[in-house]
Amino acid sequence: MDEILKAVLKRVKPREAERKRLKKVADMLIERVNRACDELNVPARAMLVGSAARGTWLRSERDIDIFILFPEDLPREELEKKGLAVARKVAGKRGKEQFAEHPYITTEVGGFEVDLVPCYEVADAGKIKSAVDRTPHHNRYVGERLTPELADEVLLLKQFMFGTGTYGAELKVQGFSGYLCELLILHYLSFKEAINAASKWAPGSIIDLEGSYPDQAEVKALFEGQPLIVIDPVDTNRNVAAAVSMQNFATFVRACQDFMRESNMRFFFPRRVKLLSKRDVERILRRRGTRLFCVAFKSPDIVPDILYPQLRKTERALVTGLARAGFEMLRSDVWANDKSIILLELAIAELPMVQVHVGPPIKVDVGDFVQTHLRSKRKFAGPFLDSSGRLAFEVKRRQTDARRALEQALVERTAFGRHVAGALAKGYKIHEGRQITKLCDDKKICRFVSEYLTRCLPWYR
Amino acid sequence: MDEILKAVLKRVKPREAERKRLKKVADMLIERVNRACDELNVPARAMLVGSAARGTWLRSERDIDIFILFPEDLPREELEKKGLAVARKVAGKRGKEQFAEHPYITTEVGGFEVDLVPCYEVADAGKIKSAVDRTPHHNRYVGERLTPELADEVLLLKQFMFGTGTYGAELKVQGFSGYLCELLILHYLSFKEAINAASKWAPGSIIDLEGSYPDQAEVKALFEGQPLIVIDPVDTNRNVAAAVSMQNFATFVRACQDFMRESNMRFFFPRRVKLLSKRDVERILRRRGTRLFCVAFKSPDIVPDILYPQLRKTERALVTGLARAGFEMLRSDVWANDKSIILLELAIAELPMVQVHVGPPIKVDVGDFVQTHLRSKRKFAGPFLDSSGRLAFEVKRRQTDARRALEQALVERTAFGRHVAGALAKGYKIHEGRQITKLCDDKKICRFVSEYLTRCLPWYR
Repeated sequence: MDEILKAVLKRVKPREAERKRLKKVADMLIERVNRACDELNVPARAMLVGSAARGTWLRSERDIDIFILFPEDLPREELEKKGLAVARKVAGKRGKEQFAEHPYITTEVGGFEVDLVPCYEVADAGKIKSAVDRTPHHNRYVGERLTPELADEVLLLKQFMFGTGTYGAELKVQGFSGYLCELLILHYLSFKEAINAASKWAPGSIIDLEGSYPDQAEVKALFEGQPLIVIDPVDTNRNVAAAVSMQNFATFVRACQDFMRESNMRFFFPRRVKLLSKRDVERILRRRGTRLFCVAFKSPDIVPDILYPQLRKTERALVTGLARAGFEMLRSDVWANDKSIILLELAIAELPMVQVHVGPPIKVDVGDFVQTHLRSKRKFAGPFLDSSGRLAFEVKRRQTDARRALEQALVERTAFGRHVAGALAKGYKIHEGRQITKLCDDKKICRFVSEYLTRCLPWYR
Repeated sequence: MDEILKAVLKRVKPREAERKRLKKVADMLIERVNRACDELNVPARAMLVGSAARGTWLRSERDIDIFILFPEDLPREELEKKGLAVARKVAGKRGKEQFAEHPYITTEVGGFEVDLVPCYEVADAGKIKSAVDRTPHHNRYVGERLTPELADEVLLLKQFMFGTGTYGAELKVQGFSGYLCELLILHYLSFKEAINAASKWAPGSIIDLEGSYPDQAEVKALFEGQPLIVIDPVDTNRNVAAAVSMQNFATFVRACQDFMRESNMRFFFPRRVKLLSKRDVERILRRRGTRLFCVAFKSPDIVPDILYPQLRKTERALVTGLARAGFEMLRSDVWANDKSIILLELAIAELPMVQVHVGPPIKVDVGDFVQTHLRSKRKFAGPFLDSSGRLAFEVKRRQTDARRALEQALVERTAFGRHVAGALAKGYKIHEGRQITKLCDDKKICRFVSEYLTRCLPWYR
């Protein structure tokens, strides 16, 4: 295993020249931000944060995060206005305004993707005004503890997560953040020990680096239902792993189990997903024999961290709605860039007209159950008692066709994400079965469809 | 309600002339049995048992049960030989040998169906050698306690059970026996009180006339899972209601609840099931939109009390087998006379090629799950983790067609009833959908099919 890790580190650790180049660009940006603050008479200063600041960036990553720290007593409106003015001056015309909790600016400088983020410099991380205010504290906490040797271990763990598809706290991924990676290494002190420990995790595992909670039951109650709980050392009310979905948690644990059994470069550098040709897509769909519905529409103008949760919420609403109509989902997924896609795959898309309505068990008063159904025009048979002693009627099903049930749900839009509902109201298209190949001219959509149809854990590809 | 009960009693209680006629035939048969015993030098004597003996027979019933009581010390083989010899002599050529636990003879005398059943005269009913030995004890217990007034109440209760389709302890029906009816009246002392009490029964209700068990928990443990528990006063280890299925229990309780709400002659004399024409059957099947399979074969040569449990066991095996193959049953039923029929109605009879195999949850070692599926030629996609954190593969389904899955199960015959399996091995036919009308030339089968398609509690017909 050591051989493998050495080879991985060699491949992912930035070269000296690359480090110098990043440092040069970062220093230049900090100087420009501080100069802009002076020129605009703004009481703020720049700080390099994130993996670039901590020496935990991978060669493949080209991100520089510069935070612009304002004094705590500045009104929020002022911070946003002045922060943006400084960032815009630094970024120039190429800067693009983004909006999370605060507005911020992204741009590109010397081949790096640069974020310029205004925030408050808050003395106590437990009393922050906005999520971004926590970042400088994370920076300090990790910076004071992470030796260059440990930074190498972080690189290994990050690459392992990249390779197994579990890296990234953004809501599109719902995986492990860079900061979470760093904390895991600070806790377990090596890549190998982290993997070994994680291979034994069960849902609800707790990591409390500073021993902030003497009572585990309290932690469990506080973060109930979250698969992994890592107490943030700078803010003990926060679970650093809150974004990690059950699916990604389980994927990571299985990856660790498999890696402990047989370590392999494939965990760090998996084969890419093979792009399927249109003919391949058609052939696979025919073989599967399912009914695939692909709801496609123009994405609403919101950032992915807002869009993806809304798409998933809409997906859940459609899955639930169709299930209530009797159509069980085999699998479903969502994807978005300019276009949003909700993929729904049903085993059965046509049901018989007759449907069973089961009434209360023997001990319970039947109320109006019998009378309502007796008089109903939808009645086929009943009332009778089934073998478990429950009253039953056989009645006419309201909708026997899944496509029509789906179309109806898309008109009603109950429990959809708000912006997604708005976008769907403006129009959508349902591509059914092999019609999905029409979307595959877009290479990114083709990659999504290919990945869906050949879904496989990356290290088994 | 009293008006109704009076009218019912008038209709079901045998007239004086009918009583005299039955007494005459019964006395004659007893005399002939006793004379045959003398002539064949057999140490036995006749006893009239059942409802005819207790004055609890309905006008519609034409049964006379004569038991031939042998001394306890006679070897079983002797009893069977000598008992049959006596019975045969009495019945003559028209007698038909039947076999339950013992062999016995059925015949017809003067318009009555006569059973001539050899049994042991056992002093202690708890130490009987065969189930039939208990009957003389029941006869004595009820005979000593049932006044003519209470006998009228029994008639009402029996007719109520007839009307609601819950009367009959034979395994075709799985309902309430005549003796059970009599005990219920001895316990509740009137029809009305029995119905009122039963309307409040829940599964697991206990009736212990003689207070044989001071501890109800003991009774519950002894007869676990049985919907109704009525301790036999002559043998406290026995539940008189053991034959009552959950379905019939619930039907009876619902009938009592409905009757308490609104008493009506329909509970005693329901409308008959309307026989459907072939065109009606075809029309209803088309409207239901289901896939109906009717497995028909020549019945094995066994009495209904052995055939029906075997048919139901076979039905269960087919339902389970098809469910395991992915085909959920909407409803199913069995029926038999010379022909046996197993009716299976599926909502869906064709499934897509792809099928999900879910592996162990996160905490459990995957064992060979992944390796077995990875190498399998049936693999479509996987392994991947589903949203609940379980490993999953998508594989090729072994059988996508329900009819072929059914045919395969009929070849394998796993967990079928023994004689039914033998009969099926000799040949069967699957009538699918409207082909079932070919069977409807037989009026009894037509009645069964009509009842199935328009199933409804009798008092709602």
